[in-house]
Amino acid sequence: MKEKIDVFDYSVKFTKDVMKGFLLTTKANGKVNSMVIGWGTIGIQWGKPICIVYVRTSRYTHKLLEENPEFTVNIPIDRLGEDVFRICGSLSGKDMDKIKEANLTLVEGECVSVPAIKEAPITLECKVIYKQTQVVEDYAEDIRKKYYCNGEGKAEGQQAVHTAFYGEIVNAYMIK
Amino acid sequence: MKEKIDVFDYSVKFTKDVMKGFLLTTKANGKVNSMVIGWGTIGIQWGKPICIVYVRTSRYTHKLLEENPEFTVNIPIDRLGEDVFRICGSLSGKDMDKIKEANLTLVEGECVSVPAIKEAPITLECKVIYKQTQVVEDYAEDIRKKYYCNGEGKAEGQQAVHTAFYGEIVNAYMIK
Repeated sequence: MKEKIDVFDYSVKFTKDVMKGFLLTTKANGKVNSMVIGWGTIGIQWGKPICIVYVRTSRYTHKLLEENPEFTVNIPIDRLGEDVFRICGSLSGKDMDKIKEANLTLVEGECVSVPAIKEAPITLECKVIYKQTQVVEDYAEDIRKKYYCNGEGKAEGQQAVHTAFYGEIVNAYMIK
Repeated sequence: MKEKIDVFDYSVKFTKDVMKGFLLTTKANGKVNSMVIGWGTIGIQWGKPICIVYVRTSRYTHKLLEENPEFTVNIPIDRLGEDVFRICGSLSGKDMDKIKEANLTLVEGECVSVPAIKEAPITLECKVIYKQTQVVEDYAEDIRKKYYCNGEGKAEGQQAVHTAFYGEIVNAYMIK
């Protein structure tokens, strides 16, 4: 069952908990994929409720969003289970079915073609209405070094810059 | 007196009230200026608390932010006074001292060179750590028509696109 919510009632939860890990779910060509995100902003642009998510251009999620510009943000009540965190946080959906592997339960979306996730039940359904890839030369030096250089122990993909996907929040609910 | 706050305790207030109007205050070359904003997002990027404000490239505030990349966001307890809204919402600081005209009381900043505003006492002190001017061709058509075309009754400046200024929230307090 889905219980409608005013998404901004959850803005404190969103801003305080996003670093603990939410899921960002996408779907294209019949393939559903969830990745862990630790960043995001919420508010208003163009008079619309907006959730901005930041996805490296190297990610499988990026590819899916290019193919189908809709996503759900899936917020756990407390925090993601360890297995979910590990599988959706460090492996790529390119090579596997993360949903199955992490034992996630899909719940059909209402206003978007992308499903919600029962195990992370606070759901934002979003349609991408603007996107912009960030420019590495414009990052402050400490940010560039920390997040975009190929430092020791970082995979090559970690260098890719982020695209800001501006999702209009078209629907929000709690899965009961 | 300033009472420190956890800025994310106010995320519900931020997201629900920004369309009623907050002030965005900037300062460069000794000149302080406040404009009314109705859009903004709040959350996390690069592991930092971030407030993103959107300022048209034609605005005097844009010029001040280019010269001194710091700002305060000034949130009223209820809503801005009518005079403040009119003066800071529709006139340009290029030609006048809006602070004086709107009878605003400046309160010196703590971590930034820009002052806070006593009449809009919930204060976010921000340093710009990234900025990116949006691309008009990438806006959805309805957004472009509504906000960026020189339609009837719109001044020429209304056509200018927005720059997203990513402010790291370095301090937050309530002025008592």
